[in-house]
Amino acid sequence: MKLLEERILKDGRAVNEDILRVDTFINHQVDPELMMKCAKDFAAHFRGKGITKIVTIESSGISPALFTAMEMGLQMVILKKQPSKVLNDDLYQTMVTSFTKGTNYELTLSKEVINENDHVLIIDDFLANGEAVTAAVRLLRMAHATVAGIGILIEKEFQPGREKLNDAGFEVYSLARIESMSKDRIVFG
Amino acid sequence: MKLLEERILKDGRAVNEDILRVDTFINHQVDPELMMKCAKDFAAHFRGKGITKIVTIESSGISPALFTAMEMGLQMVILKKQPSKVLNDDLYQTMVTSFTKGTNYELTLSKEVINENDHVLIIDDFLANGEAVTAAVRLLRMAHATVAGIGILIEKEFQPGREKLNDAGFEVYSLARIESMSKDRIVFG
Repeated sequence: MKLLEERILKDGRAVNEDILRVDTFINHQVDPELMMKCAKDFAAHFRGKGITKIVTIESSGISPALFTAMEMGLQMVILKKQPSKVLNDDLYQTMVTSFTKGTNYELTLSKEVINENDHVLIIDDFLANGEAVTAAVRLLRMAHATVAGIGILIEKEFQPGREKLNDAGFEVYSLARIESMSKDRIVFG
Repeated sequence: MKLLEERILKDGRAVNEDILRVDTFINHQVDPELMMKCAKDFAAHFRGKGITKIVTIESSGISPALFTAMEMGLQMVILKKQPSKVLNDDLYQTMVTSFTKGTNYELTLSKEVINENDHVLIIDDFLANGEAVTAAVRLLRMAHATVAGIGILIEKEFQPGREKLNDAGFEVYSLARIESMSKDRIVFG
């Protein structure tokens, strides 16, 4: 998506070969107009695929996911992060290890909001190693829901997230795909 | 706001005198149509007050704040929670103690997204003791921004949040005000 790529070039900041900061329009300050246009792109791509619910991961995926849900007339579910395991019979829970941040957290999904009839579109801001999205897939499997596809704002092609997800049989649709980065230099694929 | 009160009565669950669960339409699963209507109400109330930016607190306030920002043609800023203090010269930081959850966390605001010319509308999902909103006010003061008002989806009138904020000179506009609760019983003010 040309508009998102242009915005990344204008306002994003490649800190090094791995870290892209998008704090002024996606992560910390959010540009609603841009997010709405990204959502319209996701909705156009995934329309007609029988999707029943939009799922995202707390918290940077919420903005694009909410607009996509609005656009498609669906409810959005936010998978919640907990610092450590609190046993709860009403929740599906799975542990996530973030290589990027060097942290562990528990991702949770309430049994009352997703069931075996749901056909889910997962929306998130970044795809890099794919830990968060594969954890989301694990939770949705526990609920016996199916995954209809994965929509990503910014994919780091040079990291293994897409390959893992494609190998597992999922479609990944990314609006901006970064082939390589170095300090202050971003190359799209 | 009648619509929100009716939805709380229909789908909310008063667990006890303090805890109201709204997991199926605000906190975990989010109803975009309802959030958009709440946002239109906030926008109508605060329009013409010179607001330059919408600020919310990670993460349950993001949905109503994003739609309010969209509706008012403004950018949204999400104050981020960190588990513990990580010193960073580019951030304003303040410690928050949550009585409800019995936890401490650091709330942060990047210096590059708010400045002394900003006139801010704070939007959040709940107002109870007001710890999160008063922490947001502290961060905005560090940035020399002014607070134009506070918009809340659900206020617990029987807790001291509003009084603290009114005493500090801020306008609080809540869409649903709960006068009292007990197990499976909710009374609006």
